[in-house]
Amino acid sequence: MAKQFIFLVSSDQRTFLQTVRSLFPCAVANRSLDFLWRFWSSGFFLAEGLSARSVLQQCLYAMLQVKRADDQSDAECVEIDRGMVYICFFKCATEDIIPKMANTLCEADSGKYVSVLDLPGSVLIVPQATLGGKAKGKGMQYHNNIGKEEGLQLYSNFVSFFEKELALSSKSSKIATIIKHGTYGNRQVLKLDTNRPCTHLMEF
Amino acid sequence: MAKQFIFLVSSDQRTFLQTVRSLFPCAVANRSLDFLWRFWSSGFFLAEGLSARSVLQQCLYAMLQVKRADDQSDAECVEIDRGMVYICFFKCATEDIIPKMANTLCEADSGKYVSVLDLPGSVLIVPQATLGGKAKGKGMQYHNNIGKEEGLQLYSNFVSFFEKELALSSKSSKIATIIKHGTYGNRQVLKLDTNRPCTHLMEF
Repeated sequence: MAKQFIFLVSSDQRTFLQTVRSLFPCAVANRSLDFLWRFWSSGFFLAEGLSARSVLQQCLYAMLQVKRADDQSDAECVEIDRGMVYICFFKCATEDIIPKMANTLCEADSGKYVSVLDLPGSVLIVPQATLGGKAKGKGMQYHNNIGKEEGLQLYSNFVSFFEKELALSSKSSKIATIIKHGTYGNRQVLKLDTNRPCTHLMEF
Repeated sequence: MAKQFIFLVSSDQRTFLQTVRSLFPCAVANRSLDFLWRFWSSGFFLAEGLSARSVLQQCLYAMLQVKRADDQSDAECVEIDRGMVYICFFKCATEDIIPKMANTLCEADSGKYVSVLDLPGSVLIVPQATLGGKAKGKGMQYHNNIGKEEGLQLYSNFVSFFEKELALSSKSSKIATIIKHGTYGNRQVLKLDTNRPCTHLMEF
């Protein structure tokens, strides 16, 4: 039954009503159908747009180059020994998803879902705008991605929130959890070693 | 208005009707509301379930251990120099998504979305069941993942399809595209080098 949905999304009123009638032959008075169509076409049943997407990649070691070498200085890198997360914000992202995102980062070693704030281990936060891409024809579209400035702001706030929460967490002070992060908008060089690639997708 | 959806998904009939009334104060006769609730709670408005998810990670080099060392032999590894894809099948996956998945693997070097079959480069296909995980309370659930045997079958068919298409592709024979793949259900050791982590999510 659920299969019909995809078809209905782009259907006109006639197709919609025909499908409803074929699926629920007993329960259909015309007045009720008009009512149902009104709700359907008003967009009432559309799911809320995504605010952010993160991919957690468990690793043993990761190194990210955050600044390229130039005439004055060598390249700068950050390293961690466990846990990496790619994040991407969409247009409708607001500050209030930050605590939620930080608390639902999971670690799957034991199959348990634990906030990274309660974990032994480290986190490397990598901004990853391509995660917001959507295949369209022969290209990838990023129309739903957040604007550059708002994205930078949210990314910085996300990292600060994370660092602040970690400093407050009694568990992390005992086990020295480390937070490192990439540079928003920069081309990044990444090395990754895992003993079991373990990739989780989270959407907010 | 769409915001209400998330709330409604897990709501009872009373909450559902209250929300409908507050959003559409003029249009609500009780009989119609009952009717609307019947459709809502029947699951009629649920989106079709996903069949598969893949994550493409662009890389310069990747190495995957496909067999662990034992008394008789050393560990076996496969290596590629460009492009890696994690795939995960869901319960409702069937054979007919395989060609679609193989053709929509993208490569983002030029910002263009190209089937890997038309690319210079290589592909490492990594089975990644954790991609099907869903956060639930304090755990990750994999209820929607495909069963082990059906998953293995689809995975094998996916790899074979890919190899066959590649052999037929005139472009790939000129540029020696290589396909390597991980072992379904095995613990895997992965090394990855990128000069720009570029992560795309595809859902089918």
